[in-house]
Amino acid sequence: MSSNEPWAVDDVGLLSPAWAGSAVAAATGDAALLRAMLEAEAALVRAQAELGLAPAGAAVAVTEAVAASAEWADPRSLALRARSGGNPVIPLVADLTAAVAARTPRAGAADHVHRGATSQDILDTAMMLVTARALDLTVADLDRAATALATLAAEHRDTVLAGRTLTQHAVPTTLGLKAVGWRSLLLAARDRLAAVRAGLPAQLGGAAGTLAAFQSDAVDESLGLRLVTAYARQTGLAEPLLPWHTLRTPIADLGAALAFTGGALGKLAADVLTLARTEIGELSEGSGGESSAMPHKSNPVRAALIAATARQLPALAGILFGSMTAEDERPAGAWHAEWQPLREALRLAGGAAGDAAELVEGLRVHPERMRENLDRGGGLIAAERLAAALAPLIGRGEARAALARAARRVVAERTDLARALRADPALTGLLSEQRLRELTDPARCLGSAGALVDRALQETL
Amino acid sequence: MSSNEPWAVDDVGLLSPAWAGSAVAAATGDAALLRAMLEAEAALVRAQAELGLAPAGAAVAVTEAVAASAEWADPRSLALRARSGGNPVIPLVADLTAAVAARTPRAGAADHVHRGATSQDILDTAMMLVTARALDLTVADLDRAATALATLAAEHRDTVLAGRTLTQHAVPTTLGLKAVGWRSLLLAARDRLAAVRAGLPAQLGGAAGTLAAFQSDAVDESLGLRLVTAYARQTGLAEPLLPWHTLRTPIADLGAALAFTGGALGKLAADVLTLARTEIGELSEGSGGESSAMPHKSNPVRAALIAATARQLPALAGILFGSMTAEDERPAGAWHAEWQPLREALRLAGGAAGDAAELVEGLRVHPERMRENLDRGGGLIAAERLAAALAPLIGRGEARAALARAARRVVAERTDLARALRADPALTGLLSEQRLRELTDPARCLGSAGALVDRALQETL
Amino acid sequence: MSSNEPWAVDDVGLLSPAWAGSAVAAATGDAALLRAMLEAEAALVRAQAELGLAPAGAAVAVTEAVAASAEWADPRSLALRARSGGNPVIPLVADLTAAVAARTPRAGAADHVHRGATSQDILDTAMMLVTARALDLTVADLDRAATALATLAAEHRDTVLAGRTLTQHAVPTTLGLKAVGWRSLLLAARDRLAAVRAGLPAQLGGAAGTLAAFQSDAVDESLGLRLVTAYARQTGLAEPLLPWHTLRTPIADLGAALAFTGGALGKLAADVLTLARTEIGELSEGSGGESSAMPHKSNPVRAALIAATARQLPALAGILFGSMTAEDERPAGAWHAEWQPLREALRLAGGAAGDAAELVEGLRVHPERMRENLDRGGGLIAAERLAAALAPLIGRGEARAALARAARRVVAERTDLARALRADPALTGLLSEQRLRELTDPARCLGSAGALVDRALQETL
Amino acid sequence: MSSNEPWAVDDVGLLSPAWAGSAVAAATGDAALLRAMLEAEAALVRAQAELGLAPAGAAVAVTEAVAASAEWADPRSLALRARSGGNPVIPLVADLTAAVAARTPRAGAADHVHRGATSQDILDTAMMLVTARALDLTVADLDRAATALATLAAEHRDTVLAGRTLTQHAVPTTLGLKAVGWRSLLLAARDRLAAVRAGLPAQLGGAAGTLAAFQSDAVDESLGLRLVTAYARQTGLAEPLLPWHTLRTPIADLGAALAFTGGALGKLAADVLTLARTEIGELSEGSGGESSAMPHKSNPVRAALIAATARQLPALAGILFGSMTAEDERPAGAWHAEWQPLREALRLAGGAAGDAAELVEGLRVHPERMRENLDRGGGLIAAERLAAALAPLIGRGEARAALARAARRVVAERTDLARALRADPALTGLLSEQRLRELTDPARCLGSAGALVDRALQETL
Repeated sequence: MSSNEPWAVDDVGLLSPAWAGSAVAAATGDAALLRAMLEAEAALVRAQAELGLAPAGAAVAVTEAVAASAEWADPRSLALRARSGGNPVIPLVADLTAAVAARTPRAGAADHVHRGATSQDILDTAMMLVTARALDLTVADLDRAATALATLAAEHRDTVLAGRTLTQHAVPTTLGLKAVGWRSLLLAARDRLAAVRAGLPAQLGGAAGTLAAFQSDAVDESLGLRLVTAYARQTGLAEPLLPWHTLRTPIADLGAALAFTGGALGKLAADVLTLARTEIGELSEGSGGESSAMPHKSNPVRAALIAATARQLPALAGILFGSMTAEDERPAGAWHAEWQPLREALRLAGGAAGDAAELVEGLRVHPERMRENLDRGGGLIAAERLAAALAPLIGRGEARAALARAARRVVAERTDLARALRADPALTGLLSEQRLRELTDPARCLGSAGALVDRALQETL
Repeated sequence: MSSNEPWAVDDVGLLSPAWAGSAVAAATGDAALLRAMLEAEAALVRAQAELGLAPAGAAVAVTEAVAASAEWADPRSLALRARSGGNPVIPLVADLTAAVAARTPRAGAADHVHRGATSQDILDTAMMLVTARALDLTVADLDRAATALATLAAEHRDTVLAGRTLTQHAVPTTLGLKAVGWRSLLLAARDRLAAVRAGLPAQLGGAAGTLAAFQSDAVDESLGLRLVTAYARQTGLAEPLLPWHTLRTPIADLGAALAFTGGALGKLAADVLTLARTEIGELSEGSGGESSAMPHKSNPVRAALIAATARQLPALAGILFGSMTAEDERPAGAWHAEWQPLREALRLAGGAAGDAAELVEGLRVHPERMRENLDRGGGLIAAERLAAALAPLIGRGEARAALARAARRVVAERTDLARALRADPALTGLLSEQRLRELTDPARCLGSAGALVDRALQETL
Repeated sequence: MSSNEPWAVDDVGLLSPAWAGSAVAAATGDAALLRAMLEAEAALVRAQAELGLAPAGAAVAVTEAVAASAEWADPRSLALRARSGGNPVIPLVADLTAAVAARTPRAGAADHVHRGATSQDILDTAMMLVTARALDLTVADLDRAATALATLAAEHRDTVLAGRTLTQHAVPTTLGLKAVGWRSLLLAARDRLAAVRAGLPAQLGGAAGTLAAFQSDAVDESLGLRLVTAYARQTGLAEPLLPWHTLRTPIADLGAALAFTGGALGKLAADVLTLARTEIGELSEGSGGESSAMPHKSNPVRAALIAATARQLPALAGILFGSMTAEDERPAGAWHAEWQPLREALRLAGGAAGDAAELVEGLRVHPERMRENLDRGGGLIAAERLAAALAPLIGRGEARAALARAARRVVAERTDLARALRADPALTGLLSEQRLRELTDPARCLGSAGALVDRALQETL
Repeated sequence: MSSNEPWAVDDVGLLSPAWAGSAVAAATGDAALLRAMLEAEAALVRAQAELGLAPAGAAVAVTEAVAASAEWADPRSLALRARSGGNPVIPLVADLTAAVAARTPRAGAADHVHRGATSQDILDTAMMLVTARALDLTVADLDRAATALATLAAEHRDTVLAGRTLTQHAVPTTLGLKAVGWRSLLLAARDRLAAVRAGLPAQLGGAAGTLAAFQSDAVDESLGLRLVTAYARQTGLAEPLLPWHTLRTPIADLGAALAFTGGALGKLAADVLTLARTEIGELSEGSGGESSAMPHKSNPVRAALIAATARQLPALAGILFGSMTAEDERPAGAWHAEWQPLREALRLAGGAAGDAAELVEGLRVHPERMRENLDRGGGLIAAERLAAALAPLIGRGEARAALARAARRVVAERTDLARALRADPALTGLLSEQRLRELTDPARCLGSAGALVDRALQETL
């Protein structure tokens, strides 16, 4: 904040380590958005020129002025002047018109700036352009993370660790099964984002979505449709079935896909955070974060930042879903409420996808700690299997009761399950020592874990 | 609340006029859910019998006990006993086991109840069964509403009314264009719900998702997979790639599709509420709601209830997205947090879809009020078009200025735009009377509205 | 669901183990709400009689009919008939009028039912009555839990355990300090709920909040105000400054206080869930929940249910905050959107408060596991303190570097910090053995923990 | 975005017309936050010097380096380097230490930077400093708006307009009553913000909240408490009872108060938007916003931007409530999730308060349109009163039926209520012409509206 611009704001991401410095952040910054709005204005004149609704020279002049926007466009001034009419397109049109007029001797080129359009045509289109770039980056990072998870799953297909439910050891599982689970969520997120990305539509409708102001008096109802086709092609976005000023399907779908992405990454982060706990220590981040107070700490920072993102995205998506309730041909608030939440959601999801790729690629696995933790549970993790093995011998109810007795003894006497069962008079002679060892071996309790991993890895990227 | 059950609750929908009495409400009630949990238990034993993991007789016995559940199952008791373990499956298994044992002389059939399964296998499967039924009803109601909207759009393809932006008259549009817009949202909602419906998966994984406890000692890793296939077929649900105890893709997708549905219906309701305002009066509900205080009122009650639903669904979906962040093999809270929000979301969306069908089918259109409202704006609605027509004659800036002058005069002198323009010395002689009349005729300002309606109606149901 | 009422719903809490069977659930059930609406109707006639606006006999007749409502009021029928007008008061007034007419020979008493009132007067007042009862129960449970936490904190004022940040051991802390922290949150929640409880207002305004219909022609502007005073006294609720049909301060404050309560309890639950993990084992629930699959498990079920509640309350509060945006003198949707979210929020917060009281009163503390966990970190938890002690001797930067070296060695060689430091040639002779022992003793690293506990315990209930 | 910093972001508020250019935005920008973090670091050393824990010279040196931060602190570099450890304090401490060392010949002053503190001590304190300034500005704008509303209410105490419920004319009310209602919400918001503002606490606890690292070996448990007292005084913030790293009462209270503010302003905006509709036209903004397409439009832009804010704040508050569930002594994500939502909430609420003040101060009232709208309802707005007047003459049921008949006739024949009643044979002779005129005069149907206004205006600011 310089002293002569007392009210200006100039945010560089200081509170957003989840995305500061990322390509997604830059692709969605005010500067990028300003360029995208100008691209939309230029695409409109070119489309009009294609259909004979504007002279070719006007299209050239506007395109050139847009290309030179660094010379004349000032995001800070636009932000301040946007307050009056409630959106930045109104002052932008004034500045672009002036720039075209100043640069082009041909009288009249400037008159074709924004002709027939409404602010929302430009801002929605610009948001979709920016979104397209952000999603491309995010999808690529999800692919990276999924590839790394496939490698992890294959490598640790049979690495045994405790399956945990409601925070307690339940039965054994494998790191491979966990990894294909994480991967399946990331692939699902990737698919949802890519599907939305493919359909991001250009916006063009004019003041009330009828495309009326683009047309000469001689009524040709199809002219507006052809203009939308040309405009969409010029922008590189999809052609919408209808102007969508208040039909916010693309925005809601973005909200859904981004919130899904947050949840998918959030599950990965939650598991990493749990397994990285000092007492558990089964996973650690490749380069843990430092601490300002404690020299020995190696914090799971990437996972923490992803977790922070997962906490925010559902709320942001909720705002976007809520904005579907948009009255009339342009709503008084619902549209304006979308802008910053959508941008922040794109940044958070993109930043988290990058963090996840980095996290997974650098993840360190500690199988010896997995084994120790299994053992430290006193073998209780085999209880379900033992109950099943005893049931045919002494009945299901008594088998469960015997295991519950043994479990209490394991905890009270800090012994292990095999010993506790041997000490139970009610079970004497029922299971041979060899059988007992087999039944309490976690590596023999894995059911279909391996087959699930193999099948899931065939799910293509 | 009977006097001898002091703490019992017995909700019949008193606070939920949006869905009380609906088929969706019944399909998702505690009684329906109880039946679905029992269906899941029976399907599991049948699937196990298919693969030789349980005797055929056990499958028959369990299926019969389930069919007779009205005789022995007590939802109230289950609800109370669910508190101890945190879910209703635990007491349900006890009651079902007892019911099978009591009804079947064959010793051992009862031992096959819930064998190898975990509570979440049953409850998730039951939720999917209940969800499937609710979505079928909801999709049908959305189809009904979309069909009625297609008729409305065709009938009113060229019915002119004011296009409104930020609450103000902007330029004219047509009811046909509004109606195809509503329809496109409802069709999008229908498609999203139907896609989720088609993939609703059965849940089967056992304690930690490895399917370990379903298997004999002789390890056959593929056995678990075959069991899931059989179980899914028995339930009529889709087969999941992986057990999804903590991979909550289906739940998040449901949240997204239901929130989308709320927003789609919310847009329809917002427009109806606006157009039904006393001063606007362009639409009214077929059978408006009565008032307890005012005999003359005919409230847009269906629209109000839909609007109330649209306010709630994004928040409920947010809970479901948040529950994707589910640590371990079963989380301590995230799963439990899904149940009631998912059910309420299904009910709200289903109720609103039914209300929307009723609303649209009975909607009364008042074209004369549309015309009056257009006229009452003093013809200002043609301002954009007049500015465009004057621009080639006097330049774009001056044209806009002239229209702004005229607009101020229309408001101040309560005149109309044509008169105000005629009175402006700067415009004398520029437009013939005939031309002025044409330019201020809203029906000649509709651009591509008709073509958009025609094209949108080709979008198949 | 009986066979002859195919669409009825009859929920008994099967999906809500967090509150099924609780006093709060019963206090907020449909039956309780129905009684509260009738109480409001009776209070209104009594208030009118007080001011001479209704005959005393009418007040008696209505009060008696209300007292006998079990004989004639049918919540199920009301729920179904509420759909037409969008709220249950409209059919309730019809039924109450009929009941009074049927029971009272005095012609005319029935004419005084609901006279001058609007549906919202009755339903809002009833919601406040029900809320008052629910909050009283919740506040009492929070008090119980806070009392138990005070005892816990005093008892474990100096019980040392690892302080953990970003999942990693940081420096030592005490269970006493954790417990006073939990308590301070619960007390803050209690205070916020109690403050809202004390101000819960009656609602009375008539159709548009002017109190017009309660008054005879002879205009006495103050009559309405006196009626509100009398009505508030009759209901036992506070007198509002203004009718609050669309001034939703009480509802928003409820949302805030309930979401706060959820977060306060959620922090407690999160810590219990972490410390109850199999590998950590420092706390366990008094009576852990059983598992349908695993006989040995003792799940932290109360904490899991509280955690599930904490995930839901912010979203429900968000709906209530959103409903403040209520247009006109009664909104078309915003009001209707409050009812079920408010009730569910009351139930969830009430259920969680009860669970928290039970959890804390039964909490089992395992100081030996706390000590073991501290030791298992290889003494790294003393690193910050050692760095501070070394800094004056070798400079701050080198001290941090030395600790970082030692920390790496602790992890790599699975040794402890004291040994690692002794083995570092750069530190030879800097710290005596005695000093090193003192510096690595967690119990000597507690700073002001004890003093903080003592001070916090003076915070009165 | 300069070409040599490809990934930098530089947001100036282009998507945030609701707060771009506002004092609140500047007070919460990255530059302001950076200064606040440095203020916190300096306050800490000064507090330590007060208690003899640091030399006075170190306090001077750090304070001077902080005062000169414009020379050496670089928010962009900090934002990028914050990614590694997950927060900006870590690199900030490095830079501040270097700056102190470079500026101060006295060896050792730099060693006292951040001594004993943890990142969260500094960042939380800085957030509270920034919040305090933002809230002061917001409270002042709410006061301005409330003052203007008091004037409006007094001036229009008896200005009659239609009371509207569920979008329909109900009974008459006054603009005075509406205005005191808006004011009461704004005063309530102001009170809630001011209460939170007064208690905003400094944060100081060290790594795990025990204040251990601030203390010498000689254990003096009270030293930490005295240090917190001194630090709070140095920062100008309140002294907390306990370190609140994971006791997030202040953050949750901020969320609640800001969401409340959004709702309070949202109600005002919703009413202005409704009453400014072209067809209603009872209110308009002093300087309506322009349109990029339509020269005649005067949009209620301030109200639209406030409405957009009201849609976002509940979701942001929900994130803050959710972050109360913060495990351990510092959570892995919950804390990080607070930063940007809290800042955005402060900006949105502050911007909306400023917009509301501007809106209310410039609001234009059109009493003649209010009267016209009342008349255009055909006098139906008097129906409730007429029903009450007829009830004693022909019974309540018949009175309601007669009014319903008349209402239908008013709509069908576009007549008015008085005429319709005169034409009803069932009512012949019941009401004199004079009485009928009185009963259908809206200005005589206002009940206690005036008295409510008078009383509410006595509520002090």
